[in-house]
Amino acid sequence: MDIEDLANRVIGGERRALARAITLIESGRADHRAMAVELGKKVSGTGRQALRLGLSGTPGVGKSTFIEAFGMMLVEQGLKVAVLAVDPSSARSGGSILGDKTRMELLSRNRNAFIRPSPSQSQLGGVARRTREVVSLCEAANYDVVLIETVGVGQSETMVAEMSDLFLLLLAPAGGDELQGVKRGIMEIADLILINKADGALKPVANRTCADYSGALRLLRKRLEDPKDFPKAMTVSAVEGNGLELAWEEMNTLADWRRENGFWEARRARQARHWFEEEVRMGLLARLTKSGEMRDHMNRLGERVAMGDLAPAAAADEMLQRLGALE
Amino acid sequence: MDIEDLANRVIGGERRALARAITLIESGRADHRAMAVELGKKVSGTGRQALRLGLSGTPGVGKSTFIEAFGMMLVEQGLKVAVLAVDPSSARSGGSILGDKTRMELLSRNRNAFIRPSPSQSQLGGVARRTREVVSLCEAANYDVVLIETVGVGQSETMVAEMSDLFLLLLAPAGGDELQGVKRGIMEIADLILINKADGALKPVANRTCADYSGALRLLRKRLEDPKDFPKAMTVSAVEGNGLELAWEEMNTLADWRRENGFWEARRARQARHWFEEEVRMGLLARLTKSGEMRDHMNRLGERVAMGDLAPAAAADEMLQRLGALE
Repeated sequence: MDIEDLANRVIGGERRALARAITLIESGRADHRAMAVELGKKVSGTGRQALRLGLSGTPGVGKSTFIEAFGMMLVEQGLKVAVLAVDPSSARSGGSILGDKTRMELLSRNRNAFIRPSPSQSQLGGVARRTREVVSLCEAANYDVVLIETVGVGQSETMVAEMSDLFLLLLAPAGGDELQGVKRGIMEIADLILINKADGALKPVANRTCADYSGALRLLRKRLEDPKDFPKAMTVSAVEGNGLELAWEEMNTLADWRRENGFWEARRARQARHWFEEEVRMGLLARLTKSGEMRDHMNRLGERVAMGDLAPAAAADEMLQRLGALE
Repeated sequence: MDIEDLANRVIGGERRALARAITLIESGRADHRAMAVELGKKVSGTGRQALRLGLSGTPGVGKSTFIEAFGMMLVEQGLKVAVLAVDPSSARSGGSILGDKTRMELLSRNRNAFIRPSPSQSQLGGVARRTREVVSLCEAANYDVVLIETVGVGQSETMVAEMSDLFLLLLAPAGGDELQGVKRGIMEIADLILINKADGALKPVANRTCADYSGALRLLRKRLEDPKDFPKAMTVSAVEGNGLELAWEEMNTLADWRRENGFWEARRARQARHWFEEEVRMGLLARLTKSGEMRDHMNRLGERVAMGDLAPAAAADEMLQRLGALE
């Protein structure tokens, strides 16, 4: 495969080249990985800085309808929109919207939109690392907005937040006994909470839910990187299109403020460093468990530690000594 | 140093031996580390399973007064209480209570209490790993309750939660404009939110604050490991002693429920495995950056990644190749 040529085609905005490049990034083969790294180097620093939007919402909140409506609004404004997903394999059958492009019929057919389902790897960490690389490819291909969605299983939101400039949480109206509550950890990373389905009979419930979450957000300590009134909760209706423009305005207000106050670049720099260190750590761990023997040993020690049979530090010491003997 | 003898004295409940063993654990010297690991093996599985209580609260909420009053109540019930701290060095001057034992005058003089300030290491991760080992020592020394406090800078609460059975958040009464809000991430790990200073003129404010947080907790999704009504918020007055018995009852209700439903052991097993893997990871990273040359190289690559000059995966690849050449 000619990586130079592929890089140029990606930068030139060829959708098929982008799709092929992503397949390369997602491949588990060692030679493909080397080519993917090469490709990453070639496209690095080209293209534009997209707005990277993380989006979480459980099945049933109308996430695909929201992405369809929100994405169409953006492409109609002349923007190029990429939609990616970070879902652990186990969650795939549970209703990941991107497995089913037909639910975003208009957007998936629009030439200024690019939709890609989650890479199918068994480890969530692996899925996230590869998606992080795909985000860079989309920027090289001059996408203006990269939306990274997750159904929010396990630690997936935290990982998506680590590759996003802004994080959106989509909720359905609910009150009293129906109230499921948001997953722990999410309220902490959300920049904007959107209560969807604020239409018809659900509108008053949506307003109440919105007020509840506004109140809860006020109980959280202000982050330095948040301007006044952020994070905030607001209502939208993906079906009727209400509130989408306003939500987009709010995102830009927040993004502009962070850019002007230095938080934007600082966040991106911190994130890039995080992924670098993560890659090094995972690479080292992969070496450690490359041999079946080492992997078995690590698992056996882990079992003994879990049973309280061996102290964590002593087990780690044993593992590291074993590794030393191997070198 | 005779590690066998030291281990026996710790198990025998000698406070001076415990203090010496902790100093050994906190030492940065390689030979001390080896001895500390040896000590950990010897005491592992001895003693009792203490109730490990994580406690967070910013300066000004009356944390030292709370620990003094709560700790004294426990020792008066015939329990042995250890108080440890996890604070990053940078936070030390900012009001870590344990630097100042005089603020817990009664407790620090009680023979059934053991108070130890935070180890002074520069890295929060290092502080937490060593404190985790100290918790095990305290259990070997037959302490019934191990309270691990943090002023809550950076990720310290998350780390304390990873070594606690229950996590308490201490807040001061506040409303309207004074409301600082809790740090992001804490509401997620708190099992019990205690609004302190529910006495005198502040009592009505404390009740309102308590109602606010009760409401916010209801917006969070239920965890499997929480019985009905948990996590919950309640008021206490450390100065007057009100609510402390009730808080202790609630902690035991929650602890018993988790024990009976298998969540207690599952959590401890998961935590032990976490610290094992963390030790292995840190050990591998330490090897990687053992040589000044490697460390410089890692830093240089990190800088380039942060500046957007190099993709994280490409930089990691370079680092790992450099490491391979070294072996």
